[in-house]
Amino acid sequence: MNEFDFIRHYLSSNNTDCELLHGIGDDAAIVRFSADFDYHISTDMLIAGRHFFSDIAPDDLAYKILAVNISDMAAMGAKPKYILLSAAMPKLDKKWLDLFFASLHKVLNDYQIKLIGGDTVKGDFVFNVTIIGQTPKGLALKRNGARVGDDIWVSGYLGLAAVALLLEQEKRNLSGSLKNNIQDIIRLPENILSQCTNKLLRPVPQIQLGQALLNIANSALDCSDGLLQDLGHILEKSQKNAVIYLDKIPSIPELKSFSDYPQWILSGGDDYELIFTADKQQTQQIQKISQECCIPLTKIGTILDRENSVLCRVLDTENGQEIKLDKLGFDHFS
Amino acid sequence: MNEFDFIRHYLSSNNTDCELLHGIGDDAAIVRFSADFDYHISTDMLIAGRHFFSDIAPDDLAYKILAVNISDMAAMGAKPKYILLSAAMPKLDKKWLDLFFASLHKVLNDYQIKLIGGDTVKGDFVFNVTIIGQTPKGLALKRNGARVGDDIWVSGYLGLAAVALLLEQEKRNLSGSLKNNIQDIIRLPENILSQCTNKLLRPVPQIQLGQALLNIANSALDCSDGLLQDLGHILEKSQKNAVIYLDKIPSIPELKSFSDYPQWILSGGDDYELIFTADKQQTQQIQKISQECCIPLTKIGTILDRENSVLCRVLDTENGQEIKLDKLGFDHFS
Repeated sequence: MNEFDFIRHYLSSNNTDCELLHGIGDDAAIVRFSADFDYHISTDMLIAGRHFFSDIAPDDLAYKILAVNISDMAAMGAKPKYILLSAAMPKLDKKWLDLFFASLHKVLNDYQIKLIGGDTVKGDFVFNVTIIGQTPKGLALKRNGARVGDDIWVSGYLGLAAVALLLEQEKRNLSGSLKNNIQDIIRLPENILSQCTNKLLRPVPQIQLGQALLNIANSALDCSDGLLQDLGHILEKSQKNAVIYLDKIPSIPELKSFSDYPQWILSGGDDYELIFTADKQQTQQIQKISQECCIPLTKIGTILDRENSVLCRVLDTENGQEIKLDKLGFDHFS
Repeated sequence: MNEFDFIRHYLSSNNTDCELLHGIGDDAAIVRFSADFDYHISTDMLIAGRHFFSDIAPDDLAYKILAVNISDMAAMGAKPKYILLSAAMPKLDKKWLDLFFASLHKVLNDYQIKLIGGDTVKGDFVFNVTIIGQTPKGLALKRNGARVGDDIWVSGYLGLAAVALLLEQEKRNLSGSLKNNIQDIIRLPENILSQCTNKLLRPVPQIQLGQALLNIANSALDCSDGLLQDLGHILEKSQKNAVIYLDKIPSIPELKSFSDYPQWILSGGDDYELIFTADKQQTQQIQKISQECCIPLTKIGTILDRENSVLCRVLDTENGQEIKLDKLGFDHFS
């Protein structure tokens, strides 16, 4: 199989769409965008050994590559519309590619996203996705809109992906000094472990929730690098401070007895839940959205005036001690 | 320097643009596209050792990464508007980055393109550019419009980048069996060698020409993988055949005495000239465009009816012998 066979076989789409005038097979796709919407464009590069294990199953890989990008659209309250995929691969292995692209096209289909461009090169596994989504004019959720007194909300449960990452590292003998902690994790009930693993391999982008929060939330982003680091982006862009309460952060009860639990929920990445802020008066509306979207939404703290250099204080309960953490998240060059 | 410092320092742009509502620093850039234009989107991944030498100067690298993508817009007759850049880099070396981004922003400025998104990860050098351009509604140049009797045109001169590639390989002791040929190439006049090297390192995307050809050309693309392979894409998409004449293909006279000359001009990639087809009646108009754009435009052959499996015949002159070539261009997985 050569490059052109590859494009014909795996990247062609038979979707018809009045906006997509010309798809894969020319120098560029042609899209006639609508005047009634704003369009959101972001790009993400994913590298073997850094963003995913080199031996990841091809269907899980395709899922995750798309999910993390779709999640960026959820964070803007946008409806994902188009993607472009570049892939560096060591060889064109038909069995591997069949599994990868079956999973990719399933996700695209589930979210009604069109693949409009691609590139393939020979090399170690690297994937780059560019995604384009839309919101009604002027309504997008952004990081810079948090207001003093806003409640801070988080969707779903945090810390599960961090636990799953430890398990996956242990499987590959990469866990090192964390070994003792791992032995206790491994003894957790099977259903808890698979819930964690599923969260790492198959995170669900909160697309429906993001769109429901348009006109409701004042700021939002998706939690990819850890709660404190990601909330920090909202605080930095909004020029605000915050306080959050450890005991209010939603997770699963079985994880709470571990000494590393605070780190998992505060600094563990890969959960892809939405963090958002909203006026207290929106509480009832947000609880209604929680029911409609079938996703728990939990208040974990409050936005405060910008006062000093500590952007976010973490208390263990509303009346409790302040928690100090050295490492607040994931820096891709640390 | 961490990832966020990097984004602030190198990827932020102070451009203001009513269409670009929200730039780098959120989950996605927001663009309000105009209803009067079609938008062209393409993506390209470039890998060290495959698309560029690992020791390439950072300013040349930034130039080339953009030029090959801007060239895709030229091939559609589009005006480039926005790019998103993902970069995997082994480390954030300030001196290297300063040179790379000074060059990158100079090119963006020269072509009035806005950088609206980016991603950085740690890894061996890989770059991915997504570019978005515009044409007036319905006017884009495509590969599938060639008609029987169309003249086949090419801009500029071909084969120079292929010669430069041999020189660069020789510098790095990668030329192998081509050594003898190389000794003759090295003895070419200095100004010829630097003309070739400049073509490889600093190809000029034919943006002005592409836009001038709207309403004139029936089909077009840019010559990146070699004349025969790229013309083959036009023929395949247009369901046509073609004949081209070796002696009409424009190159520089000093290269013509080499035994590999036919291969350089027919199969050498990296020239980034435009190949296009147009009705014979457009000849005078095309000659006028050539003068206005200050670029030679040369007729090299004719589009024929689809007859058999040989898509493109190459004759050495209009009355001469047919030329057989085994390898028609560059396949990224060959």
